[in-house]
Amino acid sequence: MTPRNTSDSRLILLSDAEYALRLSRLQEAMDADGMLISAHADLYWLTGRVFAGFAYVPRRGAALYGLRRCVHLTGDTVEPARKIEDFAARIAAMLPAAECVALETGVCSYDAVERYRAAFAAQWPEVRFASATGALRSVRAVKTDEQLRMMRLSGVRHSAVYRRIPQLYREGMSDYELQVAIERVSRLEGCLGQFRIAGSDMELFMGNVLAGDNADSPSPYDFAMGGRGMDPSLPVGADGTVIRPGTTVMVDMNGDYTGYMTDMTRTFFVGSLPDEAVRAHELSRAICRRLADAGTPGAAACDMYATALEMAREAGLEHCFMGHRQHAGFVGHGLGIEINEAPVIAPRSRDVLRAGMCIALEPKFVIPGVGAVGIENTYVVRPDGSPMECLTDAPEQLINLAE
Amino acid sequence: MTPRNTSDSRLILLSDAEYALRLSRLQEAMDADGMLISAHADLYWLTGRVFAGFAYVPRRGAALYGLRRCVHLTGDTVEPARKIEDFAARIAAMLPAAECVALETGVCSYDAVERYRAAFAAQWPEVRFASATGALRSVRAVKTDEQLRMMRLSGVRHSAVYRRIPQLYREGMSDYELQVAIERVSRLEGCLGQFRIAGSDMELFMGNVLAGDNADSPSPYDFAMGGRGMDPSLPVGADGTVIRPGTTVMVDMNGDYTGYMTDMTRTFFVGSLPDEAVRAHELSRAICRRLADAGTPGAAACDMYATALEMAREAGLEHCFMGHRQHAGFVGHGLGIEINEAPVIAPRSRDVLRAGMCIALEPKFVIPGVGAVGIENTYVVRPDGSPMECLTDAPEQLINLAE
Repeated sequence: MTPRNTSDSRLILLSDAEYALRLSRLQEAMDADGMLISAHADLYWLTGRVFAGFAYVPRRGAALYGLRRCVHLTGDTVEPARKIEDFAARIAAMLPAAECVALETGVCSYDAVERYRAAFAAQWPEVRFASATGALRSVRAVKTDEQLRMMRLSGVRHSAVYRRIPQLYREGMSDYELQVAIERVSRLEGCLGQFRIAGSDMELFMGNVLAGDNADSPSPYDFAMGGRGMDPSLPVGADGTVIRPGTTVMVDMNGDYTGYMTDMTRTFFVGSLPDEAVRAHELSRAICRRLADAGTPGAAACDMYATALEMAREAGLEHCFMGHRQHAGFVGHGLGIEINEAPVIAPRSRDVLRAGMCIALEPKFVIPGVGAVGIENTYVVRPDGSPMECLTDAPEQLINLAE
Repeated sequence: MTPRNTSDSRLILLSDAEYALRLSRLQEAMDADGMLISAHADLYWLTGRVFAGFAYVPRRGAALYGLRRCVHLTGDTVEPARKIEDFAARIAAMLPAAECVALETGVCSYDAVERYRAAFAAQWPEVRFASATGALRSVRAVKTDEQLRMMRLSGVRHSAVYRRIPQLYREGMSDYELQVAIERVSRLEGCLGQFRIAGSDMELFMGNVLAGDNADSPSPYDFAMGGRGMDPSLPVGADGTVIRPGTTVMVDMNGDYTGYMTDMTRTFFVGSLPDEAVRAHELSRAICRRLADAGTPGAAACDMYATALEMAREAGLEHCFMGHRQHAGFVGHGLGIEINEAPVIAPRSRDVLRAGMCIALEPKFVIPGVGAVGIENTYVVRPDGSPMECLTDAPEQLINLAE
C-alpha cells in the first residue's frame, strides 16, 4: 500500500468542486452567521484532511482556517493560529460582527466551548451562541459522490477480508485468536484501524468477534451485540471462548479502509446448528432485503425499525431479536467517517431517509446455547426509489469454518 | 489468555481496602461537596471497571452509583439510573443539598455538562458548579500499589514483545509491514489494543513505527514524533517507507496489557549508521539515566526538561532534539489509564513529582537522512529518593535488524 495524499501541502485535499459542494451544503444547513469547527471528524469531512486547528465557516463566502500545528500547510485563507483567541481576532478583523456563532457543543468539551465563547465575546460583545451539532450531523449524513466512492472502496476491501476468514480458522481456536488473525489480514489489506465513534460512551478495538454464549453477555456499550471482553477496562467482545461444534462465531470487524468506513457482520459456525439458529439467520437476511427495498428517500427510520420488529415477532423470535439477556434498541445506523452517524433506525427515531445516506442494517439474534446469528450490510439510499445499494458484498449464508 | 474479572457481578472490582484508598484520596483532593463522574477513564480508576452510568462521590461517606446499562451489576449503593435526571433525584433523596458540585468539564461535552447542571439545579436550586478535572488529574497521577502492580505487568509483557521484534523483520519490509507484525505479536501477548488518550486532539492506532526520513514528517498530533501516516484521515506514523540500509526504524507501540499502560520506544536499524546518529542515541540513553536519577519526590518537572535540553545543547544536538522540522514541546509525560496523564515534563510545566507517579521519558532525536533515534522508558517515582524504577526492560542499544 502507498499512502494517499499525505504529503500534499495544500490544506484542502478535495477537488475545488467537491470542496465547494460540501461548503455550500453546510452553509445552507446553518442557522447561525458562522460556525466554528475544531473536531477532527468534522474538519476531515470539510477539508479531506485531519489537522490541528480551526475552521470558521461564515454563512456566505470563504471559510477561514487557523492552524495550531503543521503550519507548512497552505491555502488562500489558511494562517497559523496557536490559540482560539488569535483565530477569533483574525476572524473579527476579516468579517463583520456575527450575531450568532454555532459551536460543536455535542462533541467539544465544556471547557473548550467556554473558551471558544469567551474568545468570540472578546471580539464581538453582542454575540450569541448556538449548537453546530445538529447541522453538522444532518449534512454529514448525506454523502457526496466522492464520499460514496470512498465508502464503496472500503466495502470492496472489507468484503475481500471477510471472504478469507474461513482460511484463517484453525480447530480449537478461540474467538480472540480468530479476531487477531482477522485484524492482521485487515491491516495488510489497508485497514487504517482507527474506529471513529461519536461521543465518549463508546469504545471498541478493531471489531467484535463473539463465539457461543459470550454473544449473550451484556456490555456497557450501546452496540448491537455485547460480549464480556478480555478485561474490565474494555468489557466488550471476544472473551477467549473456544469455537466449539454446535455454536456460532459472529464477526463484526472494522471497515475503515479510506477514512469512510463500511460496517459488515457475517456469522460462521462449526459442527451443526439447531433449526432455530438457521431460521433466525435466514430471517436476518430477509429483514435486510425487506428494509433495503423500503430504504427509499422519504422513508421514516422508525417505520423501518417497526418492520424489522414485526418480522421478528411473526417468526416468534422477538425474545432473541437484537439480544437475549440485554436488547439493543436499534436495528441500523448511519455511518461514514464515524460508525454512529445519522440516521438511527430505532423505535423513536425522527430521522427520515434521504438519497446519499449510508446505513448499516444489522438485524441480529442471540440463540442461548448457540450464539449470535444474522448479518450486517452497509447500504446507500438511492435517489430513484429503487432498493438501497449494498456496499458489503461477501457471502451471507451461515458459513461452516471446518469445511 | 483468559479474561480478567469480566464476569464478576459486583460493580466494584477492587478489594475493599483498595477501593477505600482510592475513594479517600479523591475525597481529600475534592474542593467541592460532591463530584459527578461519568467518563470511562475516571470510572475505571475509581471502580476497576468501565461501566455505563454515573458515580457521585460526596466529600464524606460512601459513593453512589447509577447504572445506565448492565443493571445486573450489584453493590450496596448501586441502582439503575437511565438518565442523569433520575440519578440526581436519587442523590438528592439520600444526601443533604450540596453547595458546590464538581463536574468533569475537561472531558465531558458541553451539552452533557449543561444537562448535568440542569439535573442538579432541579434538585438543589442554590447549587454552584466547579470543575472536577484538576482533582481527578492530580489524584490519578499518583498510582497505588495495586495500580503499580498492573503497570509492572504491562511493562513485562510490553518488553517481551519488544525482545521479539528483530525476529519479525524481513529484508525489504516497510515500516507499515513491520508495525502490523508487531501488532499481531502484541495482541497474542495480551495487548488490549485500546489506546486511551485524554482529550479529543490526539489519535493513534496501536503505535508509531517510523522509518528513515518519515520521522521528520510533521503531524497534527502532539506526540513526541510525527510521521505522515497512510491516509489523510489519520496523518501520523508509518507511511509505507521501506526500511533501507543506513536508516533507522523507531518503534513506539501500545503497552496497554492490563488497563494500565506502559510506554516504550526502541530504535532499530539496517546497514551502518553515521556517528552522529549513534551519538544521539547514546545521548538519549544518558538523558534517561540522568532524569531517572533526578526523578525524586519534590523534583520540578520543568527542571527535568531543562536538564534534558541542556544535555542536548552541550552535545550540539539541540537542532534535532524532539524533532527537526517540527519540535515536540516536552520530553516526558505521566501515564497510566491514559497515555497523557500528569505530570508533563515540559519547559513551563508547574508539575512537581510525587512518589507513585508513573512517567514515560522519551528524549528523541531526528537525524535528517537517517531517521529517528533514542529510547523511551516508563518509570515510577520511588518514595525514598532513589532513582526512578524502570518498568520497560528491553535492550536499549541500537539494534541491527539484519543480524
